[in-house]
Amino acid sequence: MLVIKVGGAQGINYDAVCADLAELLQQKQTAVLVHGGSEETNILSEKLGKPPRILTAASGYTSRYTDRETLEIFEMVYCGKINKMIVEKLQRLGVNAVGLSGIDGRLWEGTRKSSITIVEKGKRKIVRDDYTGRVEKVNTPLIRLLLDNGYVPVLTPPAISYEGEAINVDGDRAAAILAASLQAETLVILSNVPGLLRDVADETSLIPSIPLKEIEHFAEFALGRMKKKVLGAKEALQNGVQRVVFADARVEHPIRAALAGHGTVIE
Amino acid sequence: MLVIKVGGAQGINYDAVCADLAELLQQKQTAVLVHGGSEETNILSEKLGKPPRILTAASGYTSRYTDRETLEIFEMVYCGKINKMIVEKLQRLGVNAVGLSGIDGRLWEGTRKSSITIVEKGKRKIVRDDYTGRVEKVNTPLIRLLLDNGYVPVLTPPAISYEGEAINVDGDRAAAILAASLQAETLVILSNVPGLLRDVADETSLIPSIPLKEIEHFAEFALGRMKKKVLGAKEALQNGVQRVVFADARVEHPIRAALAGHGTVIE
Repeated sequence: MLVIKVGGAQGINYDAVCADLAELLQQKQTAVLVHGGSEETNILSEKLGKPPRILTAASGYTSRYTDRETLEIFEMVYCGKINKMIVEKLQRLGVNAVGLSGIDGRLWEGTRKSSITIVEKGKRKIVRDDYTGRVEKVNTPLIRLLLDNGYVPVLTPPAISYEGEAINVDGDRAAAILAASLQAETLVILSNVPGLLRDVADETSLIPSIPLKEIEHFAEFALGRMKKKVLGAKEALQNGVQRVVFADARVEHPIRAALAGHGTVIE
Repeated sequence: MLVIKVGGAQGINYDAVCADLAELLQQKQTAVLVHGGSEETNILSEKLGKPPRILTAASGYTSRYTDRETLEIFEMVYCGKINKMIVEKLQRLGVNAVGLSGIDGRLWEGTRKSSITIVEKGKRKIVRDDYTGRVEKVNTPLIRLLLDNGYVPVLTPPAISYEGEAINVDGDRAAAILAASLQAETLVILSNVPGLLRDVADETSLIPSIPLKEIEHFAEFALGRMKKKVLGAKEALQNGVQRVVFADARVEHPIRAALAGHGTVIE
């Protein structure tokens, strides 16, 4: 079992990801695809006069401020535009894809943060109208039901709170808990960089491999959105996934390149 | 088995539809929900500087001109905003809803019209870059798989062409072929009018019942979007559905009111 997360940043080659996945599936590989949509959400938010606001938590992690209006824009992009674009591409390649969000069948369930403490212009503030949270439970029977009947699940945030509210969750960490729940051997996290870099400005500074026990040390190289990928990798590996690979989604055969070790391999 | 189609025009009371469905499901009713999203698509199209263009075919039927850009807007609204809004409402009411489009698992498959002949300003024209079509096949095993495992399917256009292209299809006719494929007893088509009216300007002019054999006669009262509802009703009844009810989605308990005969009953 393989879980592939493909990011939503600029430069992602969705055609290559889908074509590579279709070929892998022909080789009897079982896979679930998870995707993001951050860049397109930024673009639509700007167009609709609701520019994105990125919150920086006191812990240093960043997240998109997600009030109900943002949540609707988020769903339009993630569940509408990107999810159906990927499902359509896969269907055209002969893959019987089914696209679902974490709300559907309570696929990804978790806690909505009732408030988050952020740092803005050097000052601490509390934000309360934010619909974000963290996935804690996966409806693996629904995933297995689809897989057992020949469907390839294509999953996207948002998730759902225990109270039944849609919540914005980090896609990398959602993919990590999914991979752990399915006892996947490998989690591939594709984005618009070659992997974890020592210097974000230098793509040749790739860190090729990290032993799990040293992940805390390497985490210092992770900036911005890469911080949650490292956190997700750690969570996946601590919960039974054998290998996590951060790799490049801008190249041809991005999944097979990742499986061949091109990227940052953590195990 | 009950198939409910809820329209996407202004005034629809989605809270009432979802609450009523939740109560019906507690009474061991089996149901599938289909929805539209036309009004919200018009609003988003305007906001994004791509105002809707309605084509009138030579046959008199109207449809939304759907080039690839419109298709993306359509998917954002139907599959993103409206589908996830309904699934979230149902989940909050304890209904384990799963939202899918016709692309997912090739749920609604059909032919894309390679060209359509339209009448514009009195002149005939041929439109070729339109992604519209008609549902001809339903993946009923996928619907049954979900129902048998306790999930309530919430379905939305677009459908998928045999070539794997997303296609805009009429939601009422898609619901009709779905109801026929599932051998549903009743198809309820809810919209923002009380049913088929003799005079569209007068809501008291409701036609309470129509025998199937007289549907052609009553079809003359159907204007605009109501034309395809009448066509869908005919197709459903000719293919084994026992009863079609056109009813009002602006009221409390809209589904049970329809089942009790409030609206236009065709059988």
